[in-house]
Amino acid sequence: MSVKHRGLSSVKFAVPPTILATASVVGPKEGAGPLGQYFDVISDDMLFGKKTWEQAQSELVRQTTELAVQKANLKMEDINYIFAGDLLNQISGSIFGVRSSLRPFFGLFGACSAIGEGMSLGAMLIDGGFADYVVASASSHFCGTEKTFRFPLELGTQRPPTSAWTVTGDGAVVLSKLGNGPYITGITTGAVVDMGITDANAMGAAMAPAAAEVIAAHFCDFEIGPAHYDVIATGDLGTIGSTLLVQLLKKRGYDISQVHTDCGMLIFDRETQDVDTGGSGCGCSATTFAGYFYKKLKDGAIKKMLFVPTGALHSVVTVQQGESIPAIAHAVAIEGGNQ
Amino acid sequence: MSVKHRGLSSVKFAVPPTILATASVVGPKEGAGPLGQYFDVISDDMLFGKKTWEQAQSELVRQTTELAVQKANLKMEDINYIFAGDLLNQISGSIFGVRSSLRPFFGLFGACSAIGEGMSLGAMLIDGGFADYVVASASSHFCGTEKTFRFPLELGTQRPPTSAWTVTGDGAVVLSKLGNGPYITGITTGAVVDMGITDANAMGAAMAPAAAEVIAAHFCDFEIGPAHYDVIATGDLGTIGSTLLVQLLKKRGYDISQVHTDCGMLIFDRETQDVDTGGSGCGCSATTFAGYFYKKLKDGAIKKMLFVPTGALHSVVTVQQGESIPAIAHAVAIEGGNQ
Repeated sequence: MSVKHRGLSSVKFAVPPTILATASVVGPKEGAGPLGQYFDVISDDMLFGKKTWEQAQSELVRQTTELAVQKANLKMEDINYIFAGDLLNQISGSIFGVRSSLRPFFGLFGACSAIGEGMSLGAMLIDGGFADYVVASASSHFCGTEKTFRFPLELGTQRPPTSAWTVTGDGAVVLSKLGNGPYITGITTGAVVDMGITDANAMGAAMAPAAAEVIAAHFCDFEIGPAHYDVIATGDLGTIGSTLLVQLLKKRGYDISQVHTDCGMLIFDRETQDVDTGGSGCGCSATTFAGYFYKKLKDGAIKKMLFVPTGALHSVVTVQQGESIPAIAHAVAIEGGNQ
Repeated sequence: MSVKHRGLSSVKFAVPPTILATASVVGPKEGAGPLGQYFDVISDDMLFGKKTWEQAQSELVRQTTELAVQKANLKMEDINYIFAGDLLNQISGSIFGVRSSLRPFFGLFGACSAIGEGMSLGAMLIDGGFADYVVASASSHFCGTEKTFRFPLELGTQRPPTSAWTVTGDGAVVLSKLGNGPYITGITTGAVVDMGITDANAMGAAMAPAAAEVIAAHFCDFEIGPAHYDVIATGDLGTIGSTLLVQLLKKRGYDISQVHTDCGMLIFDRETQDVDTGGSGCGCSATTFAGYFYKKLKDGAIKKMLFVPTGALHSVVTVQQGESIPAIAHAVAIEGGNQ
């Protein structure tokens, strides 16, 4: 077990954990979007058979987590640890979603960076010899998120053009000590970055500096540049945040424009789906990775990617009290699916 | 680096991480309680110089985290990772509290078990070779918690006799690869346990089964019994939950009555401080450990303890929707301070 530290915040894995399987369950709007064919389950019921948005999200977590374990040809009791996070107060989507699993559980809050947080911690626990199998899961639900952070849908409040559309979905990954890849080869863990943005409807702008910070640290620590990767996929910066990210990294001497994409810009068709700047929410990066990118890595269409889930760390109360929006991003390097 | 798995949920550390330093900052009521002399800082200002309860809690987190690092004779830039969690929506106490640190950050939500979650993950990252120094911090604030979970204080709502008093305080620990102890020798990570309790004012009863589950698993995995420890300290079960815990473990053949105590019963004087069943909140177990138990371990008065922070994982919304209260507990074995 030799681990290489490069800088303070990066880890290169000596024996990179394999992403053994993924699962993605989404709502109807995500299913009708450009990535529809890549998701495992598309529900036409936003309530997922339940009575409330919160229960719907828990059901989404339960279904996705169980499906991921099943697709890995494992049983739930094989899983050493589950990491899960979401946007609801006290992450109740995740808590109630994993309740029936009876597996050791670490609850996370990293807002929409949650899947990156879970994959990073999970990969360290596996490479460190503490686990054979770890599940990381992250979810969001459009209706529950609007209710928690903005306005109840029943009010019909108009959305500003800088807003994003919260993805209804859960993406889960099963990490394993053994396997043929795709491998998590390294991680760079982000710090809380706050550049003073106070508009909770402009989260892309709030998150872009955190993404720039962690990507630049990653390049520096691993002594590589943008050309090392086929794809650098941020979580949910949307159109405005993505433009800012490219500009911020150009100022530091890194041109990522040829390889950068953003899960929030891939998951919906902005021309026809009325989502303003794009998709957002913990489920945005999690389902886009679990559904789309994982399959592209498996079939060799993508050989090396840097996955950078991004999170805006405000709450309703902190925004009402005039606080700015802190943000965070975690970089996960994933390589080689069909070697 | 050899790690021993005993059962699915326990880890015995080959090279146990040292708890290099701790810090505890509390409010006036905690300072006036039986453990007052053990805390580093007692503030007589519930607002900690800020304008809102949320800002006060963030200030509490900032002060405590910085003090812990300082007491370890380190600088903030020496810290590889910070883990922090609290009870506020979107853990904003922790987020805004660590914002100025600029260190790689993993946000946690485990309700009042947060310090156990952070110590467990931190110990694994250190034993795994991923970090030299990790900070774990957990905080709560009486006023912010009442506002978030129950009623604004201004209403003067009567408290039922089963209720607990949320501790205003933050406890932080600095874990290190090198040091002379006290050592984290092993951990047992809990699962979400839900026995159907629906009264959010009876959290001790909701959490006792989760504590019993993880303690029994710990005994089983490590092939030991209650007599192995000088002290088994649960987080915030209070009087009712503690009685239940002892009964539940007796049914499984373990009599912990001679060594069990509960941070929620230690931190306040229930005769004179009007706290009903005892203290609660993320800060309850965190400050009691960081303030009281750590010093007892250092001076050799306690040689072996099992620290079992407990968390009730409900939210206002889930309680209003009639859901029961899931709970979790994590066991952290700590041994040897002055060997």
